[in-house]
Amino acid sequence: MPRPDIVDDNRDVVYELRAVGHVESPLSAAAQAPKQGHEGGPDAWLVFDADYEPAMRDLAAGERAHVLTWLHLADRSVLRVHPRDDETQPIRGVFATRSQDRPNPLGLHTVTILEVDRHRVLVSDLEAVDGTPIVDVKPVLRSD
Amino acid sequence: MPRPDIVDDNRDVVYELRAVGHVESPLSAAAQAPKQGHEGGPDAWLVFDADYEPAMRDLAAGERAHVLTWLHLADRSVLRVHPRDDETQPIRGVFATRSQDRPNPLGLHTVTILEVDRHRVLVSDLEAVDGTPIVDVKPVLRSD
Repeated sequence: MPRPDIVDDNRDVVYELRAVGHVESPLSAAAQAPKQGHEGGPDAWLVFDADYEPAMRDLAAGERAHVLTWLHLADRSVLRVHPRDDETQPIRGVFATRSQDRPNPLGLHTVTILEVDRHRVLVSDLEAVDGTPIVDVKPVLRSD
Repeated sequence: MPRPDIVDDNRDVVYELRAVGHVESPLSAAAQAPKQGHEGGPDAWLVFDADYEPAMRDLAAGERAHVLTWLHLADRSVLRVHPRDDETQPIRGVFATRSQDRPNPLGLHTVTILEVDRHRVLVSDLEAVDGTPIVDVKPVLRSD
């Protein structure tokens, strides 16, 4: 079946992601970020660009959400890693790890919304560093 | 603090996503796709480009994974929708829904890996249509 936008090996296909906002966090460098949010990421603000206020307007305190970010400090050339940068652990393909270094460095952060202030949203336990671009937010479903 | 890659309103910032593979599914058109996987998406194959085989090599049957896709049929200009295309439901910002129409049409699919055959991975309950580009795969964590 024809898939005009998919070439044989996918290598030439590029999709353009746009930042819809950014993270404001006390975490100021990658080395400071815990490996995952449940290990104690701080509360952080999701600051949406004013253009996207209509899209985030119905977010509400108390809800759980997936925040998708672009991990702009990541190394996209990495395909295999020692999980959690622990060289005593066997090296694994990045798709079987949550390494930030991966071909498309998308961050997936599951958070609780604490407060909404116009186009800013305070969330719990976000391990992304200050300035990390936000690309999407989705409500958590029971099946996730 | 300087964030050289973030402009004031984010509008000029673009990140390039590359397909790392594509979905092979009996679902052949968007209208056929259930609204979410747990409503009965079929089993489907994740077919990785050979270049990314090192990244997916450690995926294993029985594991739960998040599959991130690029919903190439989506309308990126949509900021507010009737959830589930049901006009009796109040219109909401897309970040408070799982609508495929959204500024960055990333699909988040939580699946179980059923089988791995070299660079092809069979997963359960995937609501993406045939030919949907895959951009990332991550293991599910308890905290997600």
